[in-house]
Amino acid sequence: MRMYDIIAKKRDGGTLDRAEIAFAINGYVAGDVPDYQMSALLMAIYLRGMTDEETAVLTDVMAHSGEMVDLSAIAGIKADKHSTGGVGDKTTLVVAPIVAACGVKIAKMSGRGLGHTGGTIDKMEAVPGTRTSLTQDEFFRQVNEIGIAVIGQSGQIAVADKKLYALRDVTATVGCIPLIASSIMSKKLASGSDAILLDVTMGDGAFMKNLPDAIELARLMVSIGTAHGRKVAALITDMDKPLGHNIGNALEVAESIAVLKGRGPDDLTEVCLQLASNMLVLAGKGDLTSCRAMAERALTDGTAYLKCRQMFAAQGGDVACLDNPDQLRKAKYCYDLVAQGEGYIAKNDVEKIGNASVLLGAGRIKKEDTIDFAAGIIMRHKLGDYVRSGDVICTMFADDPALFQPAEEMYRGGLILSADKPTLPPLVYARVTADGIEQF
Amino acid sequence: MRMYDIIAKKRDGGTLDRAEIAFAINGYVAGDVPDYQMSALLMAIYLRGMTDEETAVLTDVMAHSGEMVDLSAIAGIKADKHSTGGVGDKTTLVVAPIVAACGVKIAKMSGRGLGHTGGTIDKMEAVPGTRTSLTQDEFFRQVNEIGIAVIGQSGQIAVADKKLYALRDVTATVGCIPLIASSIMSKKLASGSDAILLDVTMGDGAFMKNLPDAIELARLMVSIGTAHGRKVAALITDMDKPLGHNIGNALEVAESIAVLKGRGPDDLTEVCLQLASNMLVLAGKGDLTSCRAMAERALTDGTAYLKCRQMFAAQGGDVACLDNPDQLRKAKYCYDLVAQGEGYIAKNDVEKIGNASVLLGAGRIKKEDTIDFAAGIIMRHKLGDYVRSGDVICTMFADDPALFQPAEEMYRGGLILSADKPTLPPLVYARVTADGIEQF
Repeated sequence: MRMYDIIAKKRDGGTLDRAEIAFAINGYVAGDVPDYQMSALLMAIYLRGMTDEETAVLTDVMAHSGEMVDLSAIAGIKADKHSTGGVGDKTTLVVAPIVAACGVKIAKMSGRGLGHTGGTIDKMEAVPGTRTSLTQDEFFRQVNEIGIAVIGQSGQIAVADKKLYALRDVTATVGCIPLIASSIMSKKLASGSDAILLDVTMGDGAFMKNLPDAIELARLMVSIGTAHGRKVAALITDMDKPLGHNIGNALEVAESIAVLKGRGPDDLTEVCLQLASNMLVLAGKGDLTSCRAMAERALTDGTAYLKCRQMFAAQGGDVACLDNPDQLRKAKYCYDLVAQGEGYIAKNDVEKIGNASVLLGAGRIKKEDTIDFAAGIIMRHKLGDYVRSGDVICTMFADDPALFQPAEEMYRGGLILSADKPTLPPLVYARVTADGIEQF
Repeated sequence: MRMYDIIAKKRDGGTLDRAEIAFAINGYVAGDVPDYQMSALLMAIYLRGMTDEETAVLTDVMAHSGEMVDLSAIAGIKADKHSTGGVGDKTTLVVAPIVAACGVKIAKMSGRGLGHTGGTIDKMEAVPGTRTSLTQDEFFRQVNEIGIAVIGQSGQIAVADKKLYALRDVTATVGCIPLIASSIMSKKLASGSDAILLDVTMGDGAFMKNLPDAIELARLMVSIGTAHGRKVAALITDMDKPLGHNIGNALEVAESIAVLKGRGPDDLTEVCLQLASNMLVLAGKGDLTSCRAMAERALTDGTAYLKCRQMFAAQGGDVACLDNPDQLRKAKYCYDLVAQGEGYIAKNDVEKIGNASVLLGAGRIKKEDTIDFAAGIIMRHKLGDYVRSGDVICTMFADDPALFQPAEEMYRGGLILSADKPTLPPLVYARVTADGIEQF
């Protein structure tokens, strides 16, 4: 078998079989297939597509390119969630404790932020002392004892995906639905959970810019997971505006804690409840109505907050910061960005909001960059709000006041005021399960 | 400017401007653009295409990536020809002397063989003593004195093409009309001739497998050359069967000499006369009818043969081998491949004939391979001939008798006998000039 022939077959619109996909991927991981051949294949896949069957095989081969985590030492159903990425997306910090409080095990590996999107592990580390790297024994023991652990993804999970993603990132082959689906699902399959809820974000701050693409990605990932014997569903959620008000690691922890204490913003609370109830359904806890009630109860009776507190305590985090988020480190300076005119916020580009936050120090441009946990943005007015000249649109936080000007320029670059009230997107567009697609 | 954005633009079907093409190509030659980004761009070009304008700019940038040969030190019109490659394609050895004998200067650089197709420079070196590497002074002086020189292509011509071609060769991006056109024309423009005749081969032994593709490639190359102020035309010639009977370097020299002496095979003689007359037309020697008469006269009166002899003599070749081709080195062994059944030769795959010849030692699989000048094949029966069991289909020549079995298997693998007489392709399908397309 030759890589050349595999590239040529896909170039001409052919369907690759398991042997060909395994030859390409395993050869690439082993260093036998050079970058320049893999990037030609990736571009051919980008432009020619892959069948569902090819995508499922690619996912399987990538999952098996690294460690396949065996969670059987943890009793009961294990549930996982994954978001395709967003700005101010702190749902994991809320949803995982709710689900654990309802008796479903969470043995979760999460990622770090890169570019305009954040990552759960960085947010957790904004709570001083929190360890996000546990040994397998510690990880299993913690989940068995308190029902929840969230740690950083092991470098040994889906190693092919890691190498491929780095290449896609520099060859303009990231935004391809079969490649996105196989990248995400290879990691989820290798991570070992039984029930997997996918949060497919959609909008100008997400990979998926329109509903048909988002539904296609969701459908594909659900079908791959189901074919591998997992319970999988997806919600298509809005990313035309960030959830809640806070962007930046410590700021997002504070807002998540507020939701867990029953006083968070409505949009964030509602999406978290929908995500949590769907995870509970997948884990076999009942139908959507009863699971929704169960999730709401976990918020109102305080058990979800206590579960979150237990998790941070078990991982060494300073729970005083959870009990009173004012204890989280504050940035040295803040700066109010004010409206320069009057009207409805008709556009507030989410990618630019995320990039402004990165410019303040809250995120990474390159993997090696360090993060300022206290930096970020609190949005005072969001898409659809009416503002008058001088109204504070958002407050920015940074340790270096020189960062405010570039961040403000970035933020304003995506801001449009208009006399016409914009139509607001729904919070959740659709739900995709193994049984079909339900649009809201 | 970032290579990433250039790849993404072409991936999405956009049109690259001169600055973007120059950034990619010059960056690649300089080593600033890595192979994996260039191969992603090449695959995007393969699948998205390029406009005529993009292809012309790419050609220009590639031509200027190396030395632009200035032939002004040679008086008069300089004519060049180029074949897109074939098996048993020895036309340059015949056509160049005919044209030079008619008073048009030939200051030509040619290539070597690779894979199933041969190259003029290898064939010339089959005549003992022939030097195919001359200094520029020697080259110019020889053309000024005797009107003809054919040498190996300088490594400094279109250096971007050389690097790009090596990458295309391993990433399945060779067979793309705009890339083929720019590769060929960048070298032709840099080589400096005023009149360029393109022999676009078509058939199972050629890059172009069908007439629309062949015409498109010809049209594109003629338009690029014309836009650069050169006189350019193309003939689409058949490569469903080799021209003449001989394949292999010394064997092809012998057959070319036979044509120049007026006793070569009809098909080869006819194609050479058409190529030569079209070159004479481009060089301003008259209309096609008068140029054809001029070319025929150069064969019948012996001046073309004498011009060929003069050229070899000037370049150190042993002209005794031309006067009597039996003096060329013979292979130690020959082997007759006989028909195993009866019928018309309905198919005789040209690529397999070429590969059989390579297996005998007549060509290269890798650039570093050495060539056995005496090895090769003489076809006794060709496409359309009727053969009976035991008839000799071809004779194979090699220094090592162990080579005959794999070569025979390769040759027979492309051979089909049938009770039905096949329709034979024409020798020349079409003529493409700056004024339009004429199909025969």
